[in-house]
Amino acid sequence: MCLRRYKLTIAYDGTDFHGWQKQVPPDRDPLRTVGGVVCDALQRLLRQPIQLVGASRTDAGVHAEGQVAHFDAQIPIPIDRLAKALNSRLPDDVEAVSIEQVANNFDAIRSVLSKQYVYRIFNTVRRPLVNRHVVWHCWTPLDDERMQEAAHRLIGEHDFAAFAAAGHGRTTTVRRILRCRVERDIRNGSELHVLVEGDGFLYNMVRIIVGTLVEVGRGRFDVNIIDRMLSECDRSLGGPTLPPQGLCLQWVRY
Amino acid sequence: MCLRRYKLTIAYDGTDFHGWQKQVPPDRDPLRTVGGVVCDALQRLLRQPIQLVGASRTDAGVHAEGQVAHFDAQIPIPIDRLAKALNSRLPDDVEAVSIEQVANNFDAIRSVLSKQYVYRIFNTVRRPLVNRHVVWHCWTPLDDERMQEAAHRLIGEHDFAAFAAAGHGRTTTVRRILRCRVERDIRNGSELHVLVEGDGFLYNMVRIIVGTLVEVGRGRFDVNIIDRMLSECDRSLGGPTLPPQGLCLQWVRY
Repeated sequence: MCLRRYKLTIAYDGTDFHGWQKQVPPDRDPLRTVGGVVCDALQRLLRQPIQLVGASRTDAGVHAEGQVAHFDAQIPIPIDRLAKALNSRLPDDVEAVSIEQVANNFDAIRSVLSKQYVYRIFNTVRRPLVNRHVVWHCWTPLDDERMQEAAHRLIGEHDFAAFAAAGHGRTTTVRRILRCRVERDIRNGSELHVLVEGDGFLYNMVRIIVGTLVEVGRGRFDVNIIDRMLSECDRSLGGPTLPPQGLCLQWVRY
Repeated sequence: MCLRRYKLTIAYDGTDFHGWQKQVPPDRDPLRTVGGVVCDALQRLLRQPIQLVGASRTDAGVHAEGQVAHFDAQIPIPIDRLAKALNSRLPDDVEAVSIEQVANNFDAIRSVLSKQYVYRIFNTVRRPLVNRHVVWHCWTPLDDERMQEAAHRLIGEHDFAAFAAAGHGRTTTVRRILRCRVERDIRNGSELHVLVEGDGFLYNMVRIIVGTLVEVGRGRFDVNIIDRMLSECDRSLGGPTLPPQGLCLQWVRY
């Protein structure tokens, strides 16, 4: 049997998932995770055991437009029909966007050049209704020019220890941020989007970055807070870790 | 005690509601309805019995950006603080947009000049994810110019009996449509919006209108189907009643 390697691009509404990573608590039913649901559907479709490796272990409540995973399999049907066949076996909150064959040394985690996340802030006194699972609500006015000034200081290679949740378990906390931009949504002035592209992210890093930018936008922190956090590596200087539902993995670049 | 009349504008995500109208099935707990939830919150806030009369009895799963209701009450706090106080007692899928005092002869149903609904069609092979509760998914291509031509023929005063669900219980089925327009969402070419403004609507009328326009857009029906339905008053000539989640009451004009 000849196994080949495949790259799967997936989109999902993270609201009803316990994140990406398959979790089987002792003596309990497995939790509903994106990785678990997609892996089960692939196994039923292809009738073979599948190991699915995702680029990003998104948390519970976090969404994705372009999560990427790889797996090895022997596929008995034409590859261009596989995404459709898989979608017919997936629930309505997750979608296989595309599946393509890749080189055997492609690795969804190790081959990553960069990833981009967006954090959506619903910034008005009105409450979010139909979009409340995909935004974080901040009713105090935010100065997006100040936020943009602070965001710009994050760009480059830095030690992001001050922007990581405790227990991140990584050996190095140095990462490179390629883009960090604060934009008012042109379609809807009450939405503020923070785009962050980087070559890698620490645990809760985007949610802490945006939590800190929000304090700058509110006027509670000075723009210089970013430089202090980067040089002093002290998490307690920063803003809160914002809730997961505003976060979305937009794409992964290889 | 001096009762005054108030006009309340409400927005909601209809996904988890059994429609607008308060329903108490015999020997069972009352169903969760928008009217019921808002009325309960008003009664707790104002500590007096409230009768809430809504302009439109939206069905289960139908949303609203600007539903209107009236009620009579004696209000002990400044009126400009009432919406905020009410919102603090409302769940996160319904919002009091505004509350204002009106003339005692204002009636949320009888004073209506017109109402506008929008029906959102997600028209692409991709599946809707985070927006799946607010669109109807149609993956076959739709010719929106043909749909617009058919939509235009609905404008004016007509007998809409062919566009009403059986058992609508209304004495007359004549209504006036002021606007019926098919638009590609400029922000997102995969969304098609059908806007319908009228002086009144029969049961399921918008969902049948759009179901019929979709058959025209698919090429299964000729544009003339609208004229035949209006003259023959035969529901069986039309397209299906589309599901509720694509429908949203945008505003009510008085």
